[in-house]
Amino acid sequence: MPQSAQHEIADDRYGQLAESFVLCRKQSLALCDGLTAEDHMIQGAPFASPPKWHLAHTNWFFATFLLTPLGQHPSVPDSWHTLFNSYYNGLGQPHARAERGILSRPALPDILAWREQVDEAVLLSLREGHFDEAQLDLLELGIQHEMQHQELLLTDLLFSFSRNPALPTYSPTADSAPASSAPQDWHRFEGGIVQIGADPKDFSFDNEHPQHRHFLEPFAIANRLVTNGDYQKFIAEDGYRDPQWWLSDGWETVRREQWQRPLHWVDGDRIFSLRGVQVLDPLAPVCHLSGYEADAYARWAGCRLPSEFEWEHAAQALAPPKQPSDRLMEVNHPGWFGSVWQWTQSAYGPYPGYRPDTGAVGEYNGKFMSSQWVLRGSSFATPHPQRRLSYRNFFYPADRWQFTGLRLAKSVCTT
Amino acid sequence: MPQSAQHEIADDRYGQLAESFVLCRKQSLALCDGLTAEDHMIQGAPFASPPKWHLAHTNWFFATFLLTPLGQHPSVPDSWHTLFNSYYNGLGQPHARAERGILSRPALPDILAWREQVDEAVLLSLREGHFDEAQLDLLELGIQHEMQHQELLLTDLLFSFSRNPALPTYSPTADSAPASSAPQDWHRFEGGIVQIGADPKDFSFDNEHPQHRHFLEPFAIANRLVTNGDYQKFIAEDGYRDPQWWLSDGWETVRREQWQRPLHWVDGDRIFSLRGVQVLDPLAPVCHLSGYEADAYARWAGCRLPSEFEWEHAAQALAPPKQPSDRLMEVNHPGWFGSVWQWTQSAYGPYPGYRPDTGAVGEYNGKFMSSQWVLRGSSFATPHPQRRLSYRNFFYPADRWQFTGLRLAKSVCTT
Amino acid sequence: MPQSAQHEIADDRYGQLAESFVLCRKQSLALCDGLTAEDHMIQGAPFASPPKWHLAHTNWFFATFLLTPLGQHPSVPDSWHTLFNSYYNGLGQPHARAERGILSRPALPDILAWREQVDEAVLLSLREGHFDEAQLDLLELGIQHEMQHQELLLTDLLFSFSRNPALPTYSPTADSAPASSAPQDWHRFEGGIVQIGADPKDFSFDNEHPQHRHFLEPFAIANRLVTNGDYQKFIAEDGYRDPQWWLSDGWETVRREQWQRPLHWVDGDRIFSLRGVQVLDPLAPVCHLSGYEADAYARWAGCRLPSEFEWEHAAQALAPPKQPSDRLMEVNHPGWFGSVWQWTQSAYGPYPGYRPDTGAVGEYNGKFMSSQWVLRGSSFATPHPQRRLSYRNFFYPADRWQFTGLRLAKSVCTT
Amino acid sequence: MPQSAQHEIADDRYGQLAESFVLCRKQSLALCDGLTAEDHMIQGAPFASPPKWHLAHTNWFFATFLLTPLGQHPSVPDSWHTLFNSYYNGLGQPHARAERGILSRPALPDILAWREQVDEAVLLSLREGHFDEAQLDLLELGIQHEMQHQELLLTDLLFSFSRNPALPTYSPTADSAPASSAPQDWHRFEGGIVQIGADPKDFSFDNEHPQHRHFLEPFAIANRLVTNGDYQKFIAEDGYRDPQWWLSDGWETVRREQWQRPLHWVDGDRIFSLRGVQVLDPLAPVCHLSGYEADAYARWAGCRLPSEFEWEHAAQALAPPKQPSDRLMEVNHPGWFGSVWQWTQSAYGPYPGYRPDTGAVGEYNGKFMSSQWVLRGSSFATPHPQRRLSYRNFFYPADRWQFTGLRLAKSVCTT
Repeated sequence: MPQSAQHEIADDRYGQLAESFVLCRKQSLALCDGLTAEDHMIQGAPFASPPKWHLAHTNWFFATFLLTPLGQHPSVPDSWHTLFNSYYNGLGQPHARAERGILSRPALPDILAWREQVDEAVLLSLREGHFDEAQLDLLELGIQHEMQHQELLLTDLLFSFSRNPALPTYSPTADSAPASSAPQDWHRFEGGIVQIGADPKDFSFDNEHPQHRHFLEPFAIANRLVTNGDYQKFIAEDGYRDPQWWLSDGWETVRREQWQRPLHWVDGDRIFSLRGVQVLDPLAPVCHLSGYEADAYARWAGCRLPSEFEWEHAAQALAPPKQPSDRLMEVNHPGWFGSVWQWTQSAYGPYPGYRPDTGAVGEYNGKFMSSQWVLRGSSFATPHPQRRLSYRNFFYPADRWQFTGLRLAKSVCTT
Repeated sequence: MPQSAQHEIADDRYGQLAESFVLCRKQSLALCDGLTAEDHMIQGAPFASPPKWHLAHTNWFFATFLLTPLGQHPSVPDSWHTLFNSYYNGLGQPHARAERGILSRPALPDILAWREQVDEAVLLSLREGHFDEAQLDLLELGIQHEMQHQELLLTDLLFSFSRNPALPTYSPTADSAPASSAPQDWHRFEGGIVQIGADPKDFSFDNEHPQHRHFLEPFAIANRLVTNGDYQKFIAEDGYRDPQWWLSDGWETVRREQWQRPLHWVDGDRIFSLRGVQVLDPLAPVCHLSGYEADAYARWAGCRLPSEFEWEHAAQALAPPKQPSDRLMEVNHPGWFGSVWQWTQSAYGPYPGYRPDTGAVGEYNGKFMSSQWVLRGSSFATPHPQRRLSYRNFFYPADRWQFTGLRLAKSVCTT
Repeated sequence: MPQSAQHEIADDRYGQLAESFVLCRKQSLALCDGLTAEDHMIQGAPFASPPKWHLAHTNWFFATFLLTPLGQHPSVPDSWHTLFNSYYNGLGQPHARAERGILSRPALPDILAWREQVDEAVLLSLREGHFDEAQLDLLELGIQHEMQHQELLLTDLLFSFSRNPALPTYSPTADSAPASSAPQDWHRFEGGIVQIGADPKDFSFDNEHPQHRHFLEPFAIANRLVTNGDYQKFIAEDGYRDPQWWLSDGWETVRREQWQRPLHWVDGDRIFSLRGVQVLDPLAPVCHLSGYEADAYARWAGCRLPSEFEWEHAAQALAPPKQPSDRLMEVNHPGWFGSVWQWTQSAYGPYPGYRPDTGAVGEYNGKFMSSQWVLRGSSFATPHPQRRLSYRNFFYPADRWQFTGLRLAKSVCTT
Repeated sequence: MPQSAQHEIADDRYGQLAESFVLCRKQSLALCDGLTAEDHMIQGAPFASPPKWHLAHTNWFFATFLLTPLGQHPSVPDSWHTLFNSYYNGLGQPHARAERGILSRPALPDILAWREQVDEAVLLSLREGHFDEAQLDLLELGIQHEMQHQELLLTDLLFSFSRNPALPTYSPTADSAPASSAPQDWHRFEGGIVQIGADPKDFSFDNEHPQHRHFLEPFAIANRLVTNGDYQKFIAEDGYRDPQWWLSDGWETVRREQWQRPLHWVDGDRIFSLRGVQVLDPLAPVCHLSGYEADAYARWAGCRLPSEFEWEHAAQALAPPKQPSDRLMEVNHPGWFGSVWQWTQSAYGPYPGYRPDTGAVGEYNGKFMSSQWVLRGSSFATPHPQRRLSYRNFFYPADRWQFTGLRLAKSVCTT
């Protein structure tokens, strides 16, 4: 890296990234404020990593992709490189995902100390202008990566807590998805050739690129999310017992797992949330649905899920501009952002001309483009900088431990 | 059904369907010509149904959807309605797929007699004009359905035979995919808005509809299929040991299943086929690849799989017109049809405006639109009437017991 | 082998073995009389081998252990040595047990022809006196081995038929366990040092040796078997829902497998048997119990299972002498022999000083002495020559597809 | 309970139990001295419970069986009764064993406080003479129960640590099994009727009763345990690759689990122990063997495992009297006690006339009398009061995470 790298970089990029970095790193710790060292350990299922692991893995990301190549990574035991590698095969065989919950060592204080060392090294390099553009891009990627894990930390912890019969409360004042009393209505779109994908000027992940054209047939999309009250009708009308609404794989899952309601519903009227067990609000968006359930509900309602292209096109037209504050969010009844993630009918795949980033970091997104579905929007737990139009979240259609719901769509005859 | 139904139907539709029906039904039996009653029983895995079951299930289809509603279905034991229902939940809980191989009763002669009864009932109704247009459509669907099972009967039987250490030969003169000595080359396409989907005038499945527009970016597609010789290089260069080429789910499958080469390869140079163990022809198309292997090969080759839309658009332009004879097939080196199925990168989903057929027969295609990938073209074992441009075959990306290979594609920069 | 081997062998041993051999071989075929080639193929679970496999495996036993060492084995394809080896690792890795049901080839006629060749070779050698004493012992072992498989053929076939929703009938006149109207009563024994094990003069398996002394505390044993009527009370009183009666492993099995009644009970009053679906006779012995169920029933009844030593000691004193005819069997209400096998509380292990036979045939019994339980007596399907006092049958305590029931026992205070 | 209960109870029983109780409770905490709260959480497999769970479960035992019936149990959340119930179905459905590792709540300090409350309540009742004889018996059972868990806490923790790639050290000065340079030799016994089982005067578990007579044939038993050096020869001579030495279930386990050496051996020369990774001492007893491995080794050595009756009879004659100190233990080369547990060939079952304790505590031992094998002696981690002649430890033959080895035996011909 040239010593003079900083000369070609706008001064405010250093400053903005330093600020983002500090905010992001503090936020990760703030999320764990009320947790004991024991809480930091729990892993309720192979997919639900412990808080300590999230704190360590996000730190490993900066250490591995940013500091180590610069020779600035504080010395740590060799095993940490394996323990906190999530899935980057290019960096060796990672520690088994299902065994993250037995890592009592390194202890939490050791991880927190390591985070401080990384903080200092990153900020020093920023102050002294040691990063070139490519490294600043990696830094920005690392920040966005850590923000993704902030949401995962909460969904994973909620799941792990749900396996404790005592159903511990994360925080009585935790965020939740806002309710809406808006009646269901439709927005119609003519379709045609539309522009899809992220603007190259702003930060985005490689899977949001390249921008490209997509042809849409006419469609309509709902003005609001499906609510708990809506969904209770589906349950009451035996939606979970009638195969006609279900995809074949979904029906098999319903029967094998004996699903009768969304995940975390304690019964037909109560839900286990970050605030503990709560009475279901019929006007709040239904949450903790698998893709199969979202799809089945949509069929039962005579509709379908939107494609991710329909969703993006509609959101471009209809979504509110970036919210200045959390308060505004609470009145955001359409729920495009900041409420719950919205399943689409689109399988997660590459955009035309897609190229993963080079090197091991190229494993970030591309290798998961198989058998998963795209979710759009964001949830109440998504950090604000990630609430963007082109963001493509993805999970397997059987997954339901995220904050996931749906918005209805339908095709429109134009004749 | 009105007695006068036939008045409104073109005379030749009756005749053509009668001819197709007779040919199709004979062909199913011809495929089983050299098989013993014991061979008709074998099921080498839950997905590989026995020949007897295929003969019975295809008959059940006519009986259930065509004859029973007309009150013309020959009386059979109640259990047969369950035993030979494949997956139509609307008709009750089917017999477990994995247990088709233990059905020694009904005996083969009983199934063959039932087929004769159904043949007679159908042909009588055709002769006497008892079918209206909707019923003729169902008859045509039943014929196409039985043709699909003719290919499955062979792929399933090959798999089941492969589990017998003696590796029995189906027939020393069985068909196989033709070799080609054409060097690899590229066809380039400009893209733009293209027409996708089946012409409503000809027979097609519901999943090929409706015809609609799709926007394609510029791309190139290979002039021929990937060959055994090509694929041997991928193996020789450790393709099965390097995670960088593989989708995440694919890499997990490779390791769990300890894949080292395509299915049915006895070693690096020989393959078990319908003709028994054969020396691999380096110029023949590589076959028995999973979608994961096809995708990994394409990455290793610096390319990618085509989307199903690219494939259809290219095939419209490049595929040879319908072949008058098998002989022509053998010189058909591009292999668009009649060679091996070609994996695409497209997840199997609904076309915009897709509607499944109504009633239980609506479970035919729609409910599988999750987690599977589309294959295009056809194989040497595909009956000729099914070798059509718009045909969408679909399997899970881990499946490899079909006659499946690939054709390379790549994106093209236009600047 | 010396040419003069026969001079030292009693003439009648040749003759008796020839007679036993012929009778035994005919009986195996007679059991399959009403079966189609397809019926010969079915395998309803990994443990339930197809009839054809039983016919082939018993033939393989003679071929492998008797004829091959003499150079008299008719030539067969190499793969047969693997396919019909059950579990003799000393002879190479056997074909997977779970895949016996897919062996359409070799065809049934080929197996039957092979049996005829072996019959001829064995009988010729017997006539010409080519066998020495050790070989005659192996011949006798082979006959007893084939008799064991005659019973297994029936239990396996019954199980495989039970997986066919049509519940095919093996034979309307098949044997069954005789009913008894005897009231329950007790036989008391003082115990002390008793003699256990087979008389070396008669045929017996290696696991019945050596004869040895065993110390018994005073005990009582029931005069008859537990009946269907007895067992229906256990079910009616929620025996399957109360963990207090069950061994820990048994309770786990009950819950995992959702057991509610014995295997093959269609409901609380009917049973699927070799005669098809039959009304349960409350006076017939309860059958198709796992060891766990037998043990739980005994606890619920305030008793326990007998040890195999108690059983043998009591049977020596109480069992009727060898029955001259089947008719006598039907009035044999105590059921020591020829009714259903009786679970004991004894784990299957070696007698003091036990030595397995030498060579691969030593794998016959010894290597299974772990985690299985001993059953004593015999069932209605056990060939008469095997109904002997010292016979030790053994199955895992979760197994219940055999003809298995129980006789109660209890400890007796002598003060 | 009568106020005057204490009048009939020897004064020193109160005192002795108070002393034992205090020592035992302190020892449990002492074992956890160097552990963090995070270490207290880890569960490396369903069978390896976390230290915190052991501390809570042993406390639950006193609370449930002793204090609650007296109305003296400190109030705790309802869920604790479920969470810390191990397997007593008579007290409701316990929390799933595999999910003990996710119990971050109750926190470790809450468990420690609960232990203090129970300590106080028990000691107060003892001081004030509130316990009658039956309750004192339960108290003694609870102490012995907690001592069992002290050893389990170490074996479980060692296993859980072994799943951490960093292989954390429990304590550099932890106990280990003493080495012995004694050459292998044999002790011969005539057999005959011997006395088996615990003296009713001393404390023992119900499964060691009643004392009874057993007949033994002549046998010989080794003067010392099998060593690491002995066992390395078995490995070097391909013991893990030759099925002839293995029980059938054992061989299947070896292949499925790909066993190549004892558990916790890092390679052929090093072992992971409570002291961290250590060079194997060829004179130390081989440890972390499954029953299958112990049995296979014995066969390979031309011997067999002793029965538990042979072991007890020999130990009565040969074992050193109770050791006054740990120092003596280190020169105890025969290893009857305080070295490693010794697998026997005896399946774990009831002694003649066995009766479980009444009530839920009766589930302590009796319900496990199926499919497990008896181990005799004790290990270096076994608390001293449990190192007794009649103690019957039991595990499944596939288990190998305990401190388990073997002593050879053989049958002796007396002619």
